[in-house]
Amino acid sequence: MVTMKVEYINAFIGAAQNVFSSMLNTEVTLGRVTVNTSHVTAHDISGIIGLSGDAVGCVVVSFPMDTALAAYKAFAGEEIDPMDPNFLDAIGELTNMIAGNAKAEIVGMSISIGLPTVIMGKQHCVNAPQNVPFICIPCHCKLGNFSIEVAFRSETGNN
Amino acid sequence: MVTMKVEYINAFIGAAQNVFSSMLNTEVTLGRVTVNTSHVTAHDISGIIGLSGDAVGCVVVSFPMDTALAAYKAFAGEEIDPMDPNFLDAIGELTNMIAGNAKAEIVGMSISIGLPTVIMGKQHCVNAPQNVPFICIPCHCKLGNFSIEVAFRSETGNN
Repeated sequence: MVTMKVEYINAFIGAAQNVFSSMLNTEVTLGRVTVNTSHVTAHDISGIIGLSGDAVGCVVVSFPMDTALAAYKAFAGEEIDPMDPNFLDAIGELTNMIAGNAKAEIVGMSISIGLPTVIMGKQHCVNAPQNVPFICIPCHCKLGNFSIEVAFRSETGNN
Repeated sequence: MVTMKVEYINAFIGAAQNVFSSMLNTEVTLGRVTVNTSHVTAHDISGIIGLSGDAVGCVVVSFPMDTALAAYKAFAGEEIDPMDPNFLDAIGELTNMIAGNAKAEIVGMSISIGLPTVIMGKQHCVNAPQNVPFICIPCHCKLGNFSIEVAFRSETGNN
């Protein structure tokens, strides 16, 4: 049974839409939200950021390589080699902005966000602990598809 | 320039040795510690846990598949299929124990640890932000090789 309140999910969706609109000048539309209680197969490159405090969990923003490279170009104004550390840093920074923006939207809870880690690897899987389901949000924008996965467990009993 | 104090590194090394000794009944010996300022190529399966509070960063415990399966067998007393969610959970729990044990050893700092995330994917890369280098500790035990990578930045100015 999944008890994550819809307003928490909406905070992450709104955050992604805000960040993509303001930083990448593109509107994000959504596919059907699903809940995955096992691992999720992510795309080629994923930014992961941990949440702690009144809620523990993580946010994963995962991109096919083509979308990630197009997002970098929209972000920085120039193309980049996928092996350039600045590329991975930019994906981490996008993830950080989405998590930070969502954190600001979730009122009444004190949430700390960690440093973003970026994973690169063809069709890697990401797994949260079994008792913390991933909410998976497929996203589309003119740069391509990507997805946001949020594993989020309230520690205050108020979930 | 890397300013991570050696006692912090030692806390993570000691934690891995304690957890492997007590939970998996095997002694861990160390290879040469290196510092990686770009991404690290991890093995097949990695547990990642975020640190926040007086220090921000993450701990990555990364295993070749053979070592991870042997560690599961030593941990649970039986073999497992790599696609079983209990396998990924066990790797996450080992990572959680190492991070928790290290946190207890780092005196004078208040550190929160997040939930472990487990990544599976052949030769995936893990990247911390460019200004936070990874300390990479190659480890060996009778179950096989594995590695611990720690990205750690003190937020108190006392690093």
